[in-house]
Amino acid sequence: MAPLTPRLVVPIDVKKQPWEQEVPLHNRWHPDIPPVADVTQGELFRVEMVDCTGGQVRDDDSADDIKSLDFASPHYLSGPLRVVDAEGVPASPGDLLAVEICNLGPLPGDEWGYTGTFEREHGGGFLTDHFPSARKAIWYFEGIYAHSPQIPGVRFPGLTHPGIVGTAPSAELLNIWNQRERELVEAGHESLKLCQVLHQRPLASLPTSHNCLLGKMQEGTAEWEKIANEAARTIPGRENGGNCDIKNLSRGSKVYLPVFVEGANLSTGDMHFSQGDGEVSFCGAIEMSGFLELKCEIIRGGMKEYLTPIGPTPLHVNPIFEIGPVEPRFSEWLVFEGISVDESGKQHFLDASVAYKRAVLNAIEYLSRFGYSKEQVYILLSCCPCEGRISGIVDAPNAVATLAIPTAIFDQLVDICV
Amino acid sequence: MAPLTPRLVVPIDVKKQPWEQEVPLHNRWHPDIPPVADVTQGELFRVEMVDCTGGQVRDDDSADDIKSLDFASPHYLSGPLRVVDAEGVPASPGDLLAVEICNLGPLPGDEWGYTGTFEREHGGGFLTDHFPSARKAIWYFEGIYAHSPQIPGVRFPGLTHPGIVGTAPSAELLNIWNQRERELVEAGHESLKLCQVLHQRPLASLPTSHNCLLGKMQEGTAEWEKIANEAARTIPGRENGGNCDIKNLSRGSKVYLPVFVEGANLSTGDMHFSQGDGEVSFCGAIEMSGFLELKCEIIRGGMKEYLTPIGPTPLHVNPIFEIGPVEPRFSEWLVFEGISVDESGKQHFLDASVAYKRAVLNAIEYLSRFGYSKEQVYILLSCCPCEGRISGIVDAPNAVATLAIPTAIFDQLVDICV
Amino acid sequence: MAPLTPRLVVPIDVKKQPWEQEVPLHNRWHPDIPPVADVTQGELFRVEMVDCTGGQVRDDDSADDIKSLDFASPHYLSGPLRVVDAEGVPASPGDLLAVEICNLGPLPGDEWGYTGTFEREHGGGFLTDHFPSARKAIWYFEGIYAHSPQIPGVRFPGLTHPGIVGTAPSAELLNIWNQRERELVEAGHESLKLCQVLHQRPLASLPTSHNCLLGKMQEGTAEWEKIANEAARTIPGRENGGNCDIKNLSRGSKVYLPVFVEGANLSTGDMHFSQGDGEVSFCGAIEMSGFLELKCEIIRGGMKEYLTPIGPTPLHVNPIFEIGPVEPRFSEWLVFEGISVDESGKQHFLDASVAYKRAVLNAIEYLSRFGYSKEQVYILLSCCPCEGRISGIVDAPNAVATLAIPTAIFDQLVDICV
Amino acid sequence: MAPLTPRLVVPIDVKKQPWEQEVPLHNRWHPDIPPVADVTQGELFRVEMVDCTGGQVRDDDSADDIKSLDFASPHYLSGPLRVVDAEGVPASPGDLLAVEICNLGPLPGDEWGYTGTFEREHGGGFLTDHFPSARKAIWYFEGIYAHSPQIPGVRFPGLTHPGIVGTAPSAELLNIWNQRERELVEAGHESLKLCQVLHQRPLASLPTSHNCLLGKMQEGTAEWEKIANEAARTIPGRENGGNCDIKNLSRGSKVYLPVFVEGANLSTGDMHFSQGDGEVSFCGAIEMSGFLELKCEIIRGGMKEYLTPIGPTPLHVNPIFEIGPVEPRFSEWLVFEGISVDESGKQHFLDASVAYKRAVLNAIEYLSRFGYSKEQVYILLSCCPCEGRISGIVDAPNAVATLAIPTAIFDQLVDICV
Repeated sequence: MAPLTPRLVVPIDVKKQPWEQEVPLHNRWHPDIPPVADVTQGELFRVEMVDCTGGQVRDDDSADDIKSLDFASPHYLSGPLRVVDAEGVPASPGDLLAVEICNLGPLPGDEWGYTGTFEREHGGGFLTDHFPSARKAIWYFEGIYAHSPQIPGVRFPGLTHPGIVGTAPSAELLNIWNQRERELVEAGHESLKLCQVLHQRPLASLPTSHNCLLGKMQEGTAEWEKIANEAARTIPGRENGGNCDIKNLSRGSKVYLPVFVEGANLSTGDMHFSQGDGEVSFCGAIEMSGFLELKCEIIRGGMKEYLTPIGPTPLHVNPIFEIGPVEPRFSEWLVFEGISVDESGKQHFLDASVAYKRAVLNAIEYLSRFGYSKEQVYILLSCCPCEGRISGIVDAPNAVATLAIPTAIFDQLVDICV
Repeated sequence: MAPLTPRLVVPIDVKKQPWEQEVPLHNRWHPDIPPVADVTQGELFRVEMVDCTGGQVRDDDSADDIKSLDFASPHYLSGPLRVVDAEGVPASPGDLLAVEICNLGPLPGDEWGYTGTFEREHGGGFLTDHFPSARKAIWYFEGIYAHSPQIPGVRFPGLTHPGIVGTAPSAELLNIWNQRERELVEAGHESLKLCQVLHQRPLASLPTSHNCLLGKMQEGTAEWEKIANEAARTIPGRENGGNCDIKNLSRGSKVYLPVFVEGANLSTGDMHFSQGDGEVSFCGAIEMSGFLELKCEIIRGGMKEYLTPIGPTPLHVNPIFEIGPVEPRFSEWLVFEGISVDESGKQHFLDASVAYKRAVLNAIEYLSRFGYSKEQVYILLSCCPCEGRISGIVDAPNAVATLAIPTAIFDQLVDICV
Repeated sequence: MAPLTPRLVVPIDVKKQPWEQEVPLHNRWHPDIPPVADVTQGELFRVEMVDCTGGQVRDDDSADDIKSLDFASPHYLSGPLRVVDAEGVPASPGDLLAVEICNLGPLPGDEWGYTGTFEREHGGGFLTDHFPSARKAIWYFEGIYAHSPQIPGVRFPGLTHPGIVGTAPSAELLNIWNQRERELVEAGHESLKLCQVLHQRPLASLPTSHNCLLGKMQEGTAEWEKIANEAARTIPGRENGGNCDIKNLSRGSKVYLPVFVEGANLSTGDMHFSQGDGEVSFCGAIEMSGFLELKCEIIRGGMKEYLTPIGPTPLHVNPIFEIGPVEPRFSEWLVFEGISVDESGKQHFLDASVAYKRAVLNAIEYLSRFGYSKEQVYILLSCCPCEGRISGIVDAPNAVATLAIPTAIFDQLVDICV
Repeated sequence: MAPLTPRLVVPIDVKKQPWEQEVPLHNRWHPDIPPVADVTQGELFRVEMVDCTGGQVRDDDSADDIKSLDFASPHYLSGPLRVVDAEGVPASPGDLLAVEICNLGPLPGDEWGYTGTFEREHGGGFLTDHFPSARKAIWYFEGIYAHSPQIPGVRFPGLTHPGIVGTAPSAELLNIWNQRERELVEAGHESLKLCQVLHQRPLASLPTSHNCLLGKMQEGTAEWEKIANEAARTIPGRENGGNCDIKNLSRGSKVYLPVFVEGANLSTGDMHFSQGDGEVSFCGAIEMSGFLELKCEIIRGGMKEYLTPIGPTPLHVNPIFEIGPVEPRFSEWLVFEGISVDESGKQHFLDASVAYKRAVLNAIEYLSRFGYSKEQVYILLSCCPCEGRISGIVDAPNAVATLAIPTAIFDQLVDICV
């Protein structure tokens, strides 16, 4: 028997632009983006990926590239892959697609990444009202460890994972997405009362043909134009998985994705060397190019058997995940807390987003006592292996959220001295 | 040298009512509730506590006691304790009080607990719109393990912790609380647009003299009346710590609490044998009577040195926590995800509360395939050692929240069969 | 239903001598020591225990008590307990007895322990040729943590466990023990070639009526005399479990013990607040009085079903253990290595004992650079949560053994500075 | 700044024989084997390695290759590497060489391994008197997981590590090795009394020019001949590190090696996808080709500062290790115990090797109840992530050793049914 070397189905050349890759990439979700390859249930295959911006961010000290980043481009995804069973029968709508992450990592020869936050005007971040300017940190990898010249005195092992794993939406699901997100945008900021302190950011990114990349589809054709104007952006996680940003989804994990179109049309991208829960600075993991070694199984009829819709249609489901046994082991955690009272002192009602914002602010203020600027800590908490928890969501009116930081990532003691 | 047996400062007799205890209890936050004892920095002392309802819930199959529970009673707290240094000088406003949890557990002779959810009309729970009726599960302890006749086939080790650790507020802080919570109530449900699906519950619990217990203060006096009408309820966590419900705050952990009044006036209560992140069913941990063995240190001027106010006054701070090295070790986790689209299909903007609600609903639907009613799973997820995470809080418009459940708590396999 | 408060079957008064306890203790293994109580399969019960010396070691700075300790006394055990099923039928020879450790800890009011090493002439320790004098360290407990005035700058959480859990041997098994141990003693040190560097210690402790305690049996009778002269000492672990000193056998663990006599006659003792793998200083855990909360199940015919004899008779078996999910979590370990070359430079053949000796010596030398005497480190490595591993046992002629020490137990950095 | 892609200093082509590689390999320890490359302190570099046998074992079902393996060949090592500081000054005798393992894994395109045990006549294994025939299992890798057609129903994540990391010995140290090992062989089996049950194996492998490979040295020259007849075999771990087989020495770990010759002359090899403590079947890890990404620091004068000789010369030292934070996390362990009584019933004195042998035999007997042959379990326990502990080494006459097996590696329940 031949050794189990994974078959390379999507190769990447990081010296080329996203639109120049041998196997074409895409940066939208749409049922009609044609598959670039078939993979068979049970086979081990390898997918390589550009970083989420497709190489727009440079390995240097300046945040100018982050500042001028065209927000219509990310995330460049590899795929779609058509998944078939041993007999060649493709996955069908209603099936569940089990995707095991057997291995992953940075692309050999490209062992670095970056963490950034956008200008308020270009997408901002979770704390954009506090930190409105673009920032960037470069991270270099030494095997499992990352360190940054912009944030000295910190080194941590990465819990590497893909930010995005998803299947293609059906036309019906795509329509649901576009409609509900459009309604949100049209209602506008004034319609939002509760979390208004968070609202200095775009409400959603609606379809646009600007900078759209649709894989094998030929730009300029009528069909391209139609799809480009319909296709969903990749920013938010949705029913198809997508940009879930689950930081523990590393080696040995599994994703169970609903299948909405024939072949499942699996796409992956947005590799993260490491991310903190929440990915608060937005461009906020350690973003990098990378590879995944995957194995798929098709569970026939699995959507009905394992997923229950929560919503008006049978398509309102979410994937299920199994987290694997390998992650960095930390023994000491420093925990910051937030309640749902905003910076103006206003009381919100069980709002975990407001509570988490306060927890992150508390952590930033605390750690800035140890020689870091607040911007440095903001970037750090976005990408280091910190845990964001919803501790209490019932004790009206205060949600309690916590941010736990492993103290071992610092080369100095950051405890309170008793 | 004498062995380090902790000094018992608050004894509890579980056969007595909360208002009959030898050292009187209290169930409100107020600067003028007099301390019941002094403790000295560095000494190991023991505080015993009734369960949060003070014995109103019985060890039986009926949820009638949960249904008729007087919501104005909880939580009965032990204290306040006046903390002094070795020279007898009390902690002062502006100090930081480090409280180490050296040991804790159920009260010997009272090794059981309960988890409940309230009627919608009596406080409900996180999912009260789905599960509007009162429910109860009784848990019996076998050392570190709990099991319940109401939820058979489940057994798990407890990560035991106090739900409430807090210092007394100053008059100024109390006033801030009462004002901001009253404003919320007065604005009413209609003012809340974003999370309205969560709004079938009381917005806040304002001060009331009904069922008020104020420790050493004599009921019926004018002073009692005044304080009872001002004193804050114990339901939400606030600047003084209080009902934080941080489930990992177990043996070996530390809390750094701001000091607002002379002596700090430390109170504790609401012991939990175990709790899931979020405590979703509201009366939702495994509630029990119990004991804490504590050690305090006073960090003079520590508020200014370590806590930065996030808000309009210097009092707008939050405690800091250090989580200890001892907790159950699980290797396999099943993870459910939610995005900020509600059950009606409506899109919300980066709302972690909505996203977490959906994650919990997904978990309930999934686990109900394995022979449990949805109500059983709701109760279980509220009290078992599951983790609620804010995975993504920036990818507009969807927040992504996850609920991770250790599969080892079930005596059957609950994985997806591939 | 009544709460699951464990039934107290063996109470201890630490102010009394071992032979004065209300329920009599014993310090030998013999089939004819009569049970002191019955316990029923499935019930939760509590056994209290004196420390292994029965109170001969004092809470002071002097090692004189260790020096003059009568070696014929330890270990004072609680029991034997006769285990019966729900119908009252006792466990029978050939059954397997599952003993679950639901809870354990120091005895309330007696929260301290000690670690010692004996004079070479009185039993010594693993390194008695290097450290021939008696030493003692006292440990005080603060909940899960222990610290010692004799070894300042160290504090660690205990992985508390019973050193001894065992069933009574049958007459046949007892005879096997006595015979094989007598043969070893009679052959003498000269017969031992391989590990002779370890041989400055007594080869075995044969039966003696001196200081013998036999529970309910009346001293002075002929039967007492007979049994006292036959009964096995409790020092070594044997087929019945006994002094296994498995440091991870803490809360939530299970022991499956072979049953050799009717009723199983379960005995426990030698409580350890904490122990390092190997217990190198001999009196070497943090020895303390304590309690166990246990639950037993009888697996009828389980010896044949689950245990296979390795040796000339069906009695040559060993217990099986299941280790529970709760133990302190450490992230950084300093690891010392030893190979089977002794201190004189002589090569031994795959001798793990020699290799481990060298690993321990290396650790002692290294850590003595940080302000500790070698005797302090020797005592510390005997009782702190360090791990002793057999890393390689095949690469002739060198066995490789390692000793891994969690660096977090020190309040200074003990790493090598790069 | 350029990204931190490791510089490849030793490339391997697995299609070539060990003696055909572009950068020559070696399979002996000797001060005069010339370095194949320089590496600079602080730089990240990559070393590739053949498997320990250099490709003599085939990916098939037959153990004939294991049977006929020329025992004089292993282990083929990559190096020696001469380590210099930033100024180009090489490491000197007396320095300490810190080697950080930043990354490692199988060689891309060669993702498989094998575990074997030798014929008794060809080296045997720890249990060669029980299992005298050669056996082989092939393992295929799926990312972090390994599975074997020869041992179905088992799958586990690898804790991948190099079996061998070492520096070159000085002439003086080499002489010490050769002399002490020759004395052992010359004294013969009869001189060994204690562990004689283990003695059906070669006592040591003395220098031989047969199948000797000496890197850049030209075979056939007088110098080659001289060195080949002096050079130490690589089988045992020794003062220079070498074949330590420490299974936790994975990503993020560090080795502190003594420097005996100018340049340190660092060599590595014997990559293990996974190994159990003890590596009991001898060819017993999952042996594979692989790569290491390393970073070195020179600690000038570090031997004297950090290592204390235990023995007659200053060269009698052992390396120190730091174990990193990333390893598979298991929650349930089944633990088997052994005492130092051998299979004939004979009592040995505190012999951890005999005790561990019995623990392994107990585990094999137990697990063979679940559909495995004893030979399958023997192989499995040699390579799966099981832990071998020295639990008690002082309770004369019995050492207690334990073998702990994570139950999650089996796809069936292997617990005792209560």
